[in-house]
Amino acid sequence: MSADLTAVGKQFADFYYQTFDGNRANLGPLYRDFSMLTFEGSPIQGTTNILEKLTSLPFQTVKHIVTTMDVQPTTDGKILVLVTGMLQVDDSPNPLAYNQVFHLVPEGTTYFVLNDIFRLNLA
Amino acid sequence: MSADLTAVGKQFADFYYQTFDGNRANLGPLYRDFSMLTFEGSPIQGTTNILEKLTSLPFQTVKHIVTTMDVQPTTDGKILVLVTGMLQVDDSPNPLAYNQVFHLVPEGTTYFVLNDIFRLNLA
Repeated sequence: MSADLTAVGKQFADFYYQTFDGNRANLGPLYRDFSMLTFEGSPIQGTTNILEKLTSLPFQTVKHIVTTMDVQPTTDGKILVLVTGMLQVDDSPNPLAYNQVFHLVPEGTTYFVLNDIFRLNLA
Repeated sequence: MSADLTAVGKQFADFYYQTFDGNRANLGPLYRDFSMLTFEGSPIQGTTNILEKLTSLPFQTVKHIVTTMDVQPTTDGKILVLVTGMLQVDDSPNPLAYNQVFHLVPEGTTYFVLNDIFRLNLA
């Protein structure tokens, strides 16, 4: 993998989680009406539905801590990012392990999310 | 997600892990010379290199147990599969949690692996 792609993935993940943890209603510009999110097995499509799902998650404060991030090119400049990390929710002393895949599509000088799959690791 | 896509993902994952757990040297036909594997952060490209990596992993027996599987279409008939599961290695009493992403490309009546990212969850 080129250092460039890794940098793009890191820049995206940093921005995504900072926005999510700050005010997840602001994630809208990262999605499109054909974007897909599968959240804990529930399939959701389109910016409006995705934002509705994310903003209705039952916690007030959340912090994502990225543990690993792997990046690969797919086709036509798109990139695949696999994140594993820990999620701190509200006052819970026990962070939750999660993993999340993003498939990013280049658009101008930036990227939008075509595919997004989120899973907690409850093993 | 259509039931069809989920069925394709399940069929692929079943075949992949049965082959891996039986004799991982037989995984070659699933990869191409431009296929990418990132294994615990190490990037590897091409069937030969991928097989060399997989067959040199330091265990004799292995069993993958799939816990969750999510499937999404990407572009041009390709599909994204995120698997979380447990890995039983040799005589270890403690299975290891892992997650793995596959990006599959249709070819005739079957699929090959374009992208493959594997991570243990060592949290």
